[in-house]
Amino acid sequence: MLKAMQMLISTSSFSSSSHRFRPSVHIYGGFSSISLHPSHSSSVNPYFHAAHASRRFTPFRSSSIRSQSNATPPPPPSDRGCSIKFCQWCGAATKHEIPYGDDKPRAVCTNCGKIAYQNPKMVVGCLIEHENKVLLCKRKIEPSYGLWTLPAGYMELGESAIEGAVRETWEEAGAKVEVLSPFTQLDIPLIGQTYIIFLAKLKDSHFSPGPESLECRLFAHADIPFDSLAFSSMLVTLNLYIEDMKRGAAGIHYGIINKRPGTSPSDIHDFSLDYHWMR
Amino acid sequence: MLKAMQMLISTSSFSSSSHRFRPSVHIYGGFSSISLHPSHSSSVNPYFHAAHASRRFTPFRSSSIRSQSNATPPPPPSDRGCSIKFCQWCGAATKHEIPYGDDKPRAVCTNCGKIAYQNPKMVVGCLIEHENKVLLCKRKIEPSYGLWTLPAGYMELGESAIEGAVRETWEEAGAKVEVLSPFTQLDIPLIGQTYIIFLAKLKDSHFSPGPESLECRLFAHADIPFDSLAFSSMLVTLNLYIEDMKRGAAGIHYGIINKRPGTSPSDIHDFSLDYHWMR
Repeated sequence: MLKAMQMLISTSSFSSSSHRFRPSVHIYGGFSSISLHPSHSSSVNPYFHAAHASRRFTPFRSSSIRSQSNATPPPPPSDRGCSIKFCQWCGAATKHEIPYGDDKPRAVCTNCGKIAYQNPKMVVGCLIEHENKVLLCKRKIEPSYGLWTLPAGYMELGESAIEGAVRETWEEAGAKVEVLSPFTQLDIPLIGQTYIIFLAKLKDSHFSPGPESLECRLFAHADIPFDSLAFSSMLVTLNLYIEDMKRGAAGIHYGIINKRPGTSPSDIHDFSLDYHWMR
Repeated sequence: MLKAMQMLISTSSFSSSSHRFRPSVHIYGGFSSISLHPSHSSSVNPYFHAAHASRRFTPFRSSSIRSQSNATPPPPPSDRGCSIKFCQWCGAATKHEIPYGDDKPRAVCTNCGKIAYQNPKMVVGCLIEHENKVLLCKRKIEPSYGLWTLPAGYMELGESAIEGAVRETWEEAGAKVEVLSPFTQLDIPLIGQTYIIFLAKLKDSHFSPGPESLECRLFAHADIPFDSLAFSSMLVTLNLYIEDMKRGAAGIHYGIINKRPGTSPSDIHDFSLDYHWMR
């Protein structure tokens, strides 16, 4: 744990010439084993101009939040539906090929011809501020049993990101919250997830652990358990929040978390924050 | 077309007491048939405190962008995977029930017991500024053949939102772009989509229509074809952009577009923007 150490993360500008883009080149505290020099290559689109490391990665088959609302881990990025063996509409076998007019392999039904697409999922949650403290939940489920997280889970069909974040907060922390503003959007390409975390406040002082939580507790900023957090996304979000508070106000952040291949999903420190935009 | 008319949209604050939440209560130009008084009910989570209309809606089976990168329309929100008749892993029939520990019906395999979850999809794209003009593409595919849109499409596994937006811009407009900043996140609960649009600029002055575009053209702000846009999300995004430009700088926006049930997917004006947060 390098909680006390201020580490420089390699943060690439995606428009260094724009006055509107203000890259945050320092993230402080709570990080260890961070890649300081990510690869600057992309094999997908030669016109993607900026640094990007994830394309060098081999597939990473575990999702760090797979047991939240939706229990099935997403397929690895290189898969794009090729784990789909049968057609969900007619039950026939699928073949994996690049459909006409496409440039990526998909699972195509050998009978009805329908294509089963798979896309990234959104994880939505709340960073709840209450009397200068932050509400965290200790997980009662795997992965990351016993570790701390912000209340969050997969966004469901038929709800907005805010509604999903409020729902997950109720389910995991028994807390009624009022959303204040968007806070972070963090893409994790290697595991096909985008985290969208809102700042929120308690509507009353009540909270209690839901079925997926062992405990819920308010932590003063200095006491946030950075050495026992459940997910990289929460590590980044909480660090950004602490830094914002030191500056006096919460910003809004977009970032790309590139996890390093071959590490355990439980190693939440092995990643690079390759892009970070804030306002 | 009410392009010249300034209309008040019912915009609900999700934290009217917070100094950080600054609701934008006016959206100008380009809207017609907008619900000015959306329902303020939610049947899903009694602790969701603010206005929300979509729960009253009946399922809306068409996706307004279903023929973009991924051609299969998402299921309606009330479906949550129940259109899935067969298990994608073993090919056995599914049953539709609420799994233990869940509170929503899912497609559960009658043989292997695996659950097929379905979640909202992200649509990513770019609003490209060039010499005080905006780049639009005229669609060569259904739906909305012949109508104008920002280059955008479904985010793919293995890429970040920025990378997807840059890829779609290259595919649809033949343009190499540099992303400047996030601009809008617009959730559309009724069709299970979240639009994430970035501001971008051309890296050179070249652009040309890709296979899904009839034409690509730069429009001065006053000439944006608000009466022939393809999607509600683009209507909102372009209106927000024009308003921001009038104020002198682009903001960052989050909003929820609640489409009215029973209207044609091609009727892009029949919605309410129930939440709008900006900074």
